Amino acid sequence: MLEDEGLMKLKVREELKLKKQAYVQEEILTAAAALFAETGVRAVTIDDIASSLGYTKSVVYYYFKNKNQVLWEIFERIHEAWSQDMTSIMEKDLPPAELLGAMIRQHALNVMGRKAWTAIYFRDQAELTSDQQKIIVKRKREYDQLFKTVYTKGVEAGIFRDIPTPVIVSGIIGMANFTHAWFKEGRGLAPEEIANHYVEIILNGCRTA
Amino acid sequence: MLEDEGLMKLKVREELKLKKQAYVQEEILTAAAALFAETGVRAVTIDDIASSLGYTKSVVYYYFKNKNQVLWEIFERIHEAWSQDMTSIMEKDLPPAELLGAMIRQHALNVMGRKAWTAIYFRDQAELTSDQQKIIVKRKREYDQLFKTVYTKGVEAGIFRDIPTPVIVSGIIGMANFTHAWFKEGRGLAPEEIANHYVEIILNGCRTA
Repeated sequence: MLEDEGLMKLKVREELKLKKQAYVQEEILTAAAALFAETGVRAVTIDDIASSLGYTKSVVYYYFKNKNQVLWEIFERIHEAWSQDMTSIMEKDLPPAELLGAMIRQHALNVMGRKAWTAIYFRDQAELTSDQQKIIVKRKREYDQLFKTVYTKGVEAGIFRDIPTPVIVSGIIGMANFTHAWFKEGRGLAPEEIANHYVEIILNGCRTA
Repeated sequence: MLEDEGLMKLKVREELKLKKQAYVQEEILTAAAALFAETGVRAVTIDDIASSLGYTKSVVYYYFKNKNQVLWEIFERIHEAWSQDMTSIMEKDLPPAELLGAMIRQHALNVMGRKAWTAIYFRDQAELTSDQQKIIVKRKREYDQLFKTVYTKGVEAGIFRDIPTPVIVSGIIGMANFTHAWFKEGRGLAPEEIANHYVEIILNGCRTA
């Protein structure tokens, strides 16, 4: 009985520790992303990241081997979050126009929700190792392919004009990504309104009739 | 007579010298832009720029005081070229939809014509001095304003839907700018075809009926 209680307490403590670690890790990544986006990856040191949080650098080194691992983790998390979002949209089995609309909306919202992360994801790929870069090139191609497949279905269904998919998909991504440079949280339009405008512009812009 | 001939020769020689200087200056800026775009401004030295052209650094220093002046000159030239292009389009006094179409087409062509320069213009503003940054912020706002004014005229004429101008104009610029990341000269579609697709997507996407 006492032993069970002891085990329970240990488990709770262990869970709390993991939660705290996950929280600190996320905190470090968010601070690093803000610094990377502001001054470029090369100009930022582990010391800069730590002191922007009021930590010593040993705290950062407890979670990350080096700056490359911090940067890589930002790329990893963007990829995971975005693919999960797209997968759950595609599972809904919507008709092409609604599906494309939902994907554009989600992508735009994701960009505006984490502007610094997006800036890094699309700008600082060259700062990764060549092996990491290969993985990201492949992932970006797969992500684009989701949009291309849906667009092609719309063309086949006679709903969308036959615009070459690299042009339309890069146009969508470019339009949505640029919000990272001008959208200001809490000022002007809400992210949902901006995203909805882009959905309408693209769907109206591609429709056959 | 002989004196006149001598003067003529001197003038020709002087003109040739100026032409050569302008050529070398342009050559240096193009090489610098390629390096800046590839590895980021901070990682590039005057030595790197010089050796990428097979020059010693004294050649670069003959034309530019320091790296900041090279970078600033890239920003200056982009601004001059783009404003001249937009001014001559606006002088044609076209109706709003054609005018906006011509502006979108020209902006997209300018981006694809000088991908590295565009990447720098939209990404590396933070590498300028704060006085230079203020000038660029003002210029970008004025450039956007040209598009906003034309769009608003279209809304007033009942041709375009009433989309908030920051959303539509940033959407256009974002869509066109992203070509710097994916467009490859001589592969796939020609710049004119890509630009025309974007004109059609935007005009159809914004039209009231």
